[in-house]
Amino acid sequence: MIERYSRAPMRALWSDQARYETWLEVELAVCSEMERLGRVPVGTAEQVRAKVAIDPERVQRIEERVRHDVIAFLTHLEEQVGEPARWLHLGLTSSDVLDSAFALQLGRAGALLLEALDGLLQALARRAAETRHLPMVGRSHGIHAEPTAVGLVFAGAYAELGRQRRRLVNALEEVAVGKIAGAVGVYGNVSPEVEAGALAALGLAPETCATQVVARDRHAAFFAALGQLASSLERLAQQVRHWQRTEVGEAYEPFGRGQKGSSAMPHKRNPILTENVCGLARLVRSAVIPALENVALWHERDISHSSVERVLAPDVTTLVDFMLYRMTQVISGLELDEGRLAANLALSGGLIYSEAVLLALIGKGLARQSAYELVQRCALATQAGAGAFRTLLGQDAEIARALSPAEIDACFDVEHHLRFVDVIYQRVFVDGAVATTLPRAEGAE
Amino acid sequence: MIERYSRAPMRALWSDQARYETWLEVELAVCSEMERLGRVPVGTAEQVRAKVAIDPERVQRIEERVRHDVIAFLTHLEEQVGEPARWLHLGLTSSDVLDSAFALQLGRAGALLLEALDGLLQALARRAAETRHLPMVGRSHGIHAEPTAVGLVFAGAYAELGRQRRRLVNALEEVAVGKIAGAVGVYGNVSPEVEAGALAALGLAPETCATQVVARDRHAAFFAALGQLASSLERLAQQVRHWQRTEVGEAYEPFGRGQKGSSAMPHKRNPILTENVCGLARLVRSAVIPALENVALWHERDISHSSVERVLAPDVTTLVDFMLYRMTQVISGLELDEGRLAANLALSGGLIYSEAVLLALIGKGLARQSAYELVQRCALATQAGAGAFRTLLGQDAEIARALSPAEIDACFDVEHHLRFVDVIYQRVFVDGAVATTLPRAEGAE
Amino acid sequence: MIERYSRAPMRALWSDQARYETWLEVELAVCSEMERLGRVPVGTAEQVRAKVAIDPERVQRIEERVRHDVIAFLTHLEEQVGEPARWLHLGLTSSDVLDSAFALQLGRAGALLLEALDGLLQALARRAAETRHLPMVGRSHGIHAEPTAVGLVFAGAYAELGRQRRRLVNALEEVAVGKIAGAVGVYGNVSPEVEAGALAALGLAPETCATQVVARDRHAAFFAALGQLASSLERLAQQVRHWQRTEVGEAYEPFGRGQKGSSAMPHKRNPILTENVCGLARLVRSAVIPALENVALWHERDISHSSVERVLAPDVTTLVDFMLYRMTQVISGLELDEGRLAANLALSGGLIYSEAVLLALIGKGLARQSAYELVQRCALATQAGAGAFRTLLGQDAEIARALSPAEIDACFDVEHHLRFVDVIYQRVFVDGAVATTLPRAEGAE
Amino acid sequence: MIERYSRAPMRALWSDQARYETWLEVELAVCSEMERLGRVPVGTAEQVRAKVAIDPERVQRIEERVRHDVIAFLTHLEEQVGEPARWLHLGLTSSDVLDSAFALQLGRAGALLLEALDGLLQALARRAAETRHLPMVGRSHGIHAEPTAVGLVFAGAYAELGRQRRRLVNALEEVAVGKIAGAVGVYGNVSPEVEAGALAALGLAPETCATQVVARDRHAAFFAALGQLASSLERLAQQVRHWQRTEVGEAYEPFGRGQKGSSAMPHKRNPILTENVCGLARLVRSAVIPALENVALWHERDISHSSVERVLAPDVTTLVDFMLYRMTQVISGLELDEGRLAANLALSGGLIYSEAVLLALIGKGLARQSAYELVQRCALATQAGAGAFRTLLGQDAEIARALSPAEIDACFDVEHHLRFVDVIYQRVFVDGAVATTLPRAEGAE
Repeated sequence: MIERYSRAPMRALWSDQARYETWLEVELAVCSEMERLGRVPVGTAEQVRAKVAIDPERVQRIEERVRHDVIAFLTHLEEQVGEPARWLHLGLTSSDVLDSAFALQLGRAGALLLEALDGLLQALARRAAETRHLPMVGRSHGIHAEPTAVGLVFAGAYAELGRQRRRLVNALEEVAVGKIAGAVGVYGNVSPEVEAGALAALGLAPETCATQVVARDRHAAFFAALGQLASSLERLAQQVRHWQRTEVGEAYEPFGRGQKGSSAMPHKRNPILTENVCGLARLVRSAVIPALENVALWHERDISHSSVERVLAPDVTTLVDFMLYRMTQVISGLELDEGRLAANLALSGGLIYSEAVLLALIGKGLARQSAYELVQRCALATQAGAGAFRTLLGQDAEIARALSPAEIDACFDVEHHLRFVDVIYQRVFVDGAVATTLPRAEGAE
Repeated sequence: MIERYSRAPMRALWSDQARYETWLEVELAVCSEMERLGRVPVGTAEQVRAKVAIDPERVQRIEERVRHDVIAFLTHLEEQVGEPARWLHLGLTSSDVLDSAFALQLGRAGALLLEALDGLLQALARRAAETRHLPMVGRSHGIHAEPTAVGLVFAGAYAELGRQRRRLVNALEEVAVGKIAGAVGVYGNVSPEVEAGALAALGLAPETCATQVVARDRHAAFFAALGQLASSLERLAQQVRHWQRTEVGEAYEPFGRGQKGSSAMPHKRNPILTENVCGLARLVRSAVIPALENVALWHERDISHSSVERVLAPDVTTLVDFMLYRMTQVISGLELDEGRLAANLALSGGLIYSEAVLLALIGKGLARQSAYELVQRCALATQAGAGAFRTLLGQDAEIARALSPAEIDACFDVEHHLRFVDVIYQRVFVDGAVATTLPRAEGAE
Repeated sequence: MIERYSRAPMRALWSDQARYETWLEVELAVCSEMERLGRVPVGTAEQVRAKVAIDPERVQRIEERVRHDVIAFLTHLEEQVGEPARWLHLGLTSSDVLDSAFALQLGRAGALLLEALDGLLQALARRAAETRHLPMVGRSHGIHAEPTAVGLVFAGAYAELGRQRRRLVNALEEVAVGKIAGAVGVYGNVSPEVEAGALAALGLAPETCATQVVARDRHAAFFAALGQLASSLERLAQQVRHWQRTEVGEAYEPFGRGQKGSSAMPHKRNPILTENVCGLARLVRSAVIPALENVALWHERDISHSSVERVLAPDVTTLVDFMLYRMTQVISGLELDEGRLAANLALSGGLIYSEAVLLALIGKGLARQSAYELVQRCALATQAGAGAFRTLLGQDAEIARALSPAEIDACFDVEHHLRFVDVIYQRVFVDGAVATTLPRAEGAE
Repeated sequence: MIERYSRAPMRALWSDQARYETWLEVELAVCSEMERLGRVPVGTAEQVRAKVAIDPERVQRIEERVRHDVIAFLTHLEEQVGEPARWLHLGLTSSDVLDSAFALQLGRAGALLLEALDGLLQALARRAAETRHLPMVGRSHGIHAEPTAVGLVFAGAYAELGRQRRRLVNALEEVAVGKIAGAVGVYGNVSPEVEAGALAALGLAPETCATQVVARDRHAAFFAALGQLASSLERLAQQVRHWQRTEVGEAYEPFGRGQKGSSAMPHKRNPILTENVCGLARLVRSAVIPALENVALWHERDISHSSVERVLAPDVTTLVDFMLYRMTQVISGLELDEGRLAANLALSGGLIYSEAVLLALIGKGLARQSAYELVQRCALATQAGAGAFRTLLGQDAEIARALSPAEIDACFDVEHHLRFVDVIYQRVFVDGAVATTLPRAEGAE
């Protein structure tokens, strides 16, 4: 985890202190359940809870000697609790504690991520509402194609991030699974009854068929979901970068007062927030393969996955959280330049209506390939500087034979292209509205 | 795609012939819908269908000239159909055809994959039923831990592959999405009505908010699901490889009559099928990142994703299909060596019951850390060759003070460890039974 | 391998026929060396060579039965050769043949790649020579920065691909290593003497310390080199895509007569060649991780690497070969639009000279931060539409106090910025000239 | 970076303090060179150096306002230095400082890595010297193959890590490149002369043809080298894990006094150090793709690479450094169990000599395939429990016709298999001896 790209709540969640507290939660949930079942003296968990103050540095000092993190932790408890400590960890293996606690931490990280994602969804809905009918030239291959609306970029991102949200919710459900099943998962010295009660108290389901650990395909699914989410954030960020490039100039990231663009060039206003998000997406994406490599542990488990998860779980959740907030800031503060939007729409001299002309010709009975060649002829001439596309079409004898000047003019109509935008909005924001954790934003109908 | 690692039905699905046929399906579905809506003369689709015989080589020869695959395809149709061809592709952009057809192909590949996966699930259920109470030493870190049952390996794989099946079904739903929305997705020269009808006829949903293409996060989700599935297959394959290694010898891949293990060493019987699956898993996994990189296309799309998909879609589905059949063959034909299973269980001279002794001591009032040290002392002595673990425990004065010989004996009980296996089977095969595409296997209760 | 993205010579190299021929080369090299050392009757290799006609289909039919490729191959030889066949493969293990033959194939693929790369280097040198002093606006963050020269793009690519060439040559040297050392690499039934002679005849070095196989870090290095090369090709391809986008329009990929840009929009001229190269780079890059995963084989080897290499070696070398030729075609045929280059250079109204003004102010004694703020103030005003940058600078009282109008004018000088281009060219094309396999191109001084 | 998996010297190198100090080094090197060339008052660098005490927290506070790290840093200098600060950063762009400083940091990290790697090479040489002729069963596919020597594992690792060392040295040379060439690399407001002098003073070469930045293929090569090195460490670590598994038991990781293997099972002694190294290898490997994705920056650069490098450069170098020390500790302290080595060698009842028998039969005139089938017949019978391989061979009438009992006995000879070990050692440790940064270890002849 790198402080520069992190927010405080997520950092806190992954601190040593928080980790040990979560382990204690699991130990106490098991202990309480055993009390309930009469296997441990009533009141033990409460006693322990009262006597223990976690000191991460002390645990680490013990670990240097015993070279085992959970044993160090238990020794730390025993030091403070004394005799009743023998009722802790009864029949448990380390992974019972570690995996159940990890599930709790991932769940809490997930809640922060969903909240962050919902903020971005709301910002997108708001900006989409504002720009629903604002025309923009659509581009495929970086080349002007046909007219579209600015709002559809936000709407498309809303729909895509809504899908990513569903994938994340599914993945979070899959990792909300703990395990209190002993050394090889057969409840050798513990029981399914204890597991069921303890995990229920923690809000977790038991692993269907554990080994020493919860199966790692669950965690792989979680990291895969984050890799996917990051890639969609990259897509949106890249859109902003393209918008902001000098020759396009249709939209700009927010730029703070006092902000400086370049140490050498005082005129620069660079899309650094979205470039940053694109870089971070590479990092998040790269975590997917190690997480997949973690699945095939040896026999009932080996511990090779542990270091991978110690690094990736904090790093990746933190980065995605940061990316989500950064993109919310960018989308909320994005400055649109309507003048440039209009100018770019006009830039090709009407070439963006070429398909309409093509279809009009076909409608008059021309074969597709013949019509195509007529229109391409005028288009290439326009591109070569021979004149405006509309003019050249009018001067083309073969075209004139098929289409009247009025029929040609009718092809050059932005409004015609945007006539179904409301239908799309209905699908995105009404039929496909995302149920978020936040109160609904006004802009989002 | 590499013939060596492919099965015929999947190969056929991705042939040039099949691809062009699928494009034709899409064109005709749109045409039929337009007929229904009165925009195209009734009977056109039928006429086209009757006149066209796809010749992939001819299409490719045209493409060499026009450098555009869909235009080449349309020209090929026009050559055969003549005048009515002008009613095809009306208002469509190439991606309308390509993406909708791709969705159909992925759906068909998915159906083959589900069928293959279901075969493996059934084989696992059968083998699990046979080996439910067959004891095996459980291993963590490659080191003997505590007893478990062979059947739990199959049960665990069943549960895990059941999860992968759900992920794949979800992903297939996400890519069962087409698009008939024109050059930039706003239905410039076509309509949502045409799209809805045409796609419904093809069994596809319309993209919520398309650009020129269906959003690529959907396809990324599909490849991510396959990367996950492959990793679970690798886990199962690796288990077999470990079982078969000379010193373990608990299980063997099927070995055909006439098969030869090594060109130099006639005694060898190598787990080549599962080694192969482990290698193929690396390939499938590696496809996830390119698929994620495909998400962030420029503006309303660029075509960089196309080559990636042309290669990966056939290759990855074919490899996973092959891996599934190979693993079904391995699991179905796996030869278990019960003698070696028993011998390995006894190998440590009872050390695998050390936790039971530890808990018995704690039950008698010892502190966890003291009990731990007593037991570890005897265990290390056994490992150092000082005698059998049970014997050394009996000779230890401190232990004798806490536990009677009978109490020590009671710790050395396999059946005790397996007492909850039925509970786990209930969770896996009854509560978590996978609804497959195949008739239920008998072994799977 | 996918025919669409392949060239014939590379395809031929990886055919089944070619593979078996290479195996035969290795067997015969060993046999000949044994003849020389008196261990095999003189003339055996010659006899075998004369009698054998490789029939890949026959080998595959045998393999279906014996399930072992090298044994099938040897059986195929024995069928044709009869008795003398027993002198083949003496003391060898399959991997002796496979790994030595693989080294030969990689070397041949490498030769094709170097030839292709050298063609691209020459094209770059030629275009660099033509455009050495052609000014272009330099862009960082997609935002206009300061002037540069078009030629430096080609020169930079030449230097970068020269580095990639050195990396590839190093990697090829590392895989030019065979092994005739028997089942576990200790020459159990063969000898270092035989290995040395046989491999020398094949142009290979012996593995320093083999196991059953040549160590896989060598092959990983090869795939890593190709992943790097592909990423540099992606960089160059992406530059072309940016140049060609409608609003920039400074350069265009070659566009064939008869070529069609879009099935719907006859005006489109899309940078499809370079988009394609960007997509293919994702594929090549993704091969690096499986190749790295192949390094850690079990003990003296397992065969999990084999399937990975069977797929990746042909696929990746073929794709890189194709990318190299495609980029050579693009660079050779790239059409520059000098009008647009000049227009874009002027687009910002002189803002690209802001650093020169900043430095002039500092030169007059202003503190860096004060000077920065003065210049940024005018720059932001220009961007906000308040007037040309040169004009606003002139009207700024604080600036006027430090710089005379002539001193301000002196800052606005393209030639000044390009005064060191020749120094850079000297470094790239003279000091750093790449020794290629091809006769020197004229343009490359 | 995660403290758990890091060593102090590497951590220090990547601290904020160290980073800013390195930036200052670069600024002062440029300033000194400008003094030498008469462009800046003599003594300026010295003055600055004397007045500045870097305070990372102060820099970060400024950055929060200006949102630009280098400007914040320069402001921090200006605060302390006053007027002479205007002579700093003259004509430089931020990347001149950042990239040159990054090169210095990577070089320093590289020196630490080489030192760590050399320690491991020495440990390997030492252990190889001790175990040169210690026999061990060689295994392919996890199945016993033929005899080899323990020492060859260490020798092979030495040779492989020697190759990785060369790759790393090459990569370090490639990133020992700075850049003082201004905003777009054309020395707009600086000069090649200044760059040459300043970089030479820092021990760096100038980038051949820079844009705003040093080309990122150089850094990609560095991360690729580390990914490769990590994969070789994984291979060695995995060998130890296999050795230590209960059924094999040939070697054990060092196990500290006081160390505990499992919280539940006091008998466990787990190979956790090498499992950890295997997990970390996944992380290091995963960094290669983001580093490759960083190559294709937009135009003269975008800043998307920056976040990737901020995270990966410290993380990856730190992890590899940690892995190298951990493996040195493991190899140095590895406990070999000679009894188990001998027992395993005998485990197959002589099957490991089957190839020798095969060759003896061929030597007597049998065809390869006939001889193969005879030997396989006895081998499979042995595996099926029908008796010792040597015995069954003796009882086989067809074999008896070709080989006398003495000739059969001669095939069962370990020493014969190890007769060329010295030749291999000569190649590894004499011809291929690695020139390290450390005084030569004694064991390494």
